[in-house]
Amino acid sequence: MHEHVGEFELIARHFARPVRRALLGVGDDCALIAPTPGMQLALAADMLVEGRHFVATVPPARLGHKALAVNLSDLAACGARPLAFLLSIAMPRVDEGFVAAFAEGMYALADAHGIELVGGDTTAGPLVINVSVIGEVAPGQALRRDGARVGDTLWVSGRLGDARLALEALRGQVRLAGEDFERARLAMEAPQPRVALGLALRGIATSAIDLSDGLLGDLGHVLAASRVGASLDVATLPPGEVLARQDPAMQRLCLLHGGDDYELLFTAPAARDEAVRGAARTAGVDVTPIGRIEAAPGLRLREADGRESEVAARGFDHFA
Amino acid sequence: MHEHVGEFELIARHFARPVRRALLGVGDDCALIAPTPGMQLALAADMLVEGRHFVATVPPARLGHKALAVNLSDLAACGARPLAFLLSIAMPRVDEGFVAAFAEGMYALADAHGIELVGGDTTAGPLVINVSVIGEVAPGQALRRDGARVGDTLWVSGRLGDARLALEALRGQVRLAGEDFERARLAMEAPQPRVALGLALRGIATSAIDLSDGLLGDLGHVLAASRVGASLDVATLPPGEVLARQDPAMQRLCLLHGGDDYELLFTAPAARDEAVRGAARTAGVDVTPIGRIEAAPGLRLREADGRESEVAARGFDHFA
Repeated sequence: MHEHVGEFELIARHFARPVRRALLGVGDDCALIAPTPGMQLALAADMLVEGRHFVATVPPARLGHKALAVNLSDLAACGARPLAFLLSIAMPRVDEGFVAAFAEGMYALADAHGIELVGGDTTAGPLVINVSVIGEVAPGQALRRDGARVGDTLWVSGRLGDARLALEALRGQVRLAGEDFERARLAMEAPQPRVALGLALRGIATSAIDLSDGLLGDLGHVLAASRVGASLDVATLPPGEVLARQDPAMQRLCLLHGGDDYELLFTAPAARDEAVRGAARTAGVDVTPIGRIEAAPGLRLREADGRESEVAARGFDHFA
Repeated sequence: MHEHVGEFELIARHFARPVRRALLGVGDDCALIAPTPGMQLALAADMLVEGRHFVATVPPARLGHKALAVNLSDLAACGARPLAFLLSIAMPRVDEGFVAAFAEGMYALADAHGIELVGGDTTAGPLVINVSVIGEVAPGQALRRDGARVGDTLWVSGRLGDARLALEALRGQVRLAGEDFERARLAMEAPQPRVALGLALRGIATSAIDLSDGLLGDLGHVLAASRVGASLDVATLPPGEVLARQDPAMQRLCLLHGGDDYELLFTAPAARDEAVRGAARTAGVDVTPIGRIEAAPGLRLREADGRESEVAARGFDHFA
């Protein structure tokens, strides 16, 4: 961790804690960790930019939580066990209150998953945060995007759309009563990565992805990588607590194009439906079957009234 | 790698290449790599911000080189063998010429070290680049900052100060003739990480750090971590080719407070001087003995005329 400005050593102190599992942590050129023998390493990184991935008014503790959460969500989608993470942060000025709260939120989530910050970088600049995570998974056990097979059940964890609903409220597209807004905002700013579910689904799920860009977009990635199609029962999609009280058009928008849900979208053979439910119970997370993998390319949306509409194999991102 | 904007998929394509050593690369939630059994993992991350770590006019290929080089330099300072890296990049708009040149410079260096890009993130935002590297080193073999022992010889690789000289020229503090400026600028924008030297020094060096913040500052980190002092023979410091033609005051500034040199500063027992020279020959890099580790705290600068001045144990960063 290079401290380019004396002032920034202050920041480093907020983030440097005694090393537990790592052999060498913050403060040397590299961190050293000892992976479990025979395991493969899973790596991911996500960058958060102010004004794009979070609003300036986000409580810093939630920002610290989310910067780590979105990365743990990537490990969850691979069925990998988190080991450690690196934090790089650029910020315009040193605001010790901000840094302390950010570190607190980040460490609360890190502690919940038994992992530690082992290094990174701090510098002056526009507020940009990058977290890189490292996890491990046994050879052949990683959940990938390309494993969905014809006949598989399509599943989603948790509830969808409250994060997108909060964004719509911030944009002035919908009015939410105070408590509802706070609840939706919590979904957007403090998602819970489904690490335990990802681990429990190893050997059961055939593919998985985390929902960061919206259900249709992320499902499109799985279908493209797996070279299959799917049908989706729109009425089965589980709306978030606040979203469930909105009108049908808003529900549809936030369910299909949510973004920032950080739930797992995964597939498993239909014969393993009970195993999936068992894994979900183990992880303490609800899961809902929402469709089926099919041989015909593209995506078919089946509505509650039985109507079916076709979404082209490409361009799910732009589907309205 | 999440592509939040359709346009940014274009960027991802420039960076996505067929995976060789990695088991799963760019395009899934995580990358998967298989470490060598029994090895420890070395991790580091560095963030580069436009206007702070590079000027807007930097050739993009050099920027791609440098973003990776500064991270490989961290692995070098630990004596770790590079395995793979993650790239996160925020940029205000998609300039395909910039992206292509950036990727070319980055991949040229990656290829030279036999490593590959396995994942990361691309997003809209101010131009900020973060690279995280992962390497491996045998247990107990990592070079650390805290291993310097009284009596050790203090060494530096390569030549120092041309990068800082280029910065002074950009700031208008010194005038350099065209070819000299280009040469100094190359030192600043395209440093060569001393990976081979770091590897060759395992089992020989007692401590190491890479020179990113300037000789006095970085030496201060080693002395503090190792709880020792040192004397430095200022006249032995090897100036860069362009710096060698500058006046003594400028030479002193750039040698002691260079920054961005990315040479290795390391210590080894005096009895191992020949082993150090052998390691340097193996790596094809010049090394120079520049001082000695001493029990008395603080740093003593010994000038060519025999005068000695004391630098306090703390505050090397602010030493003028």
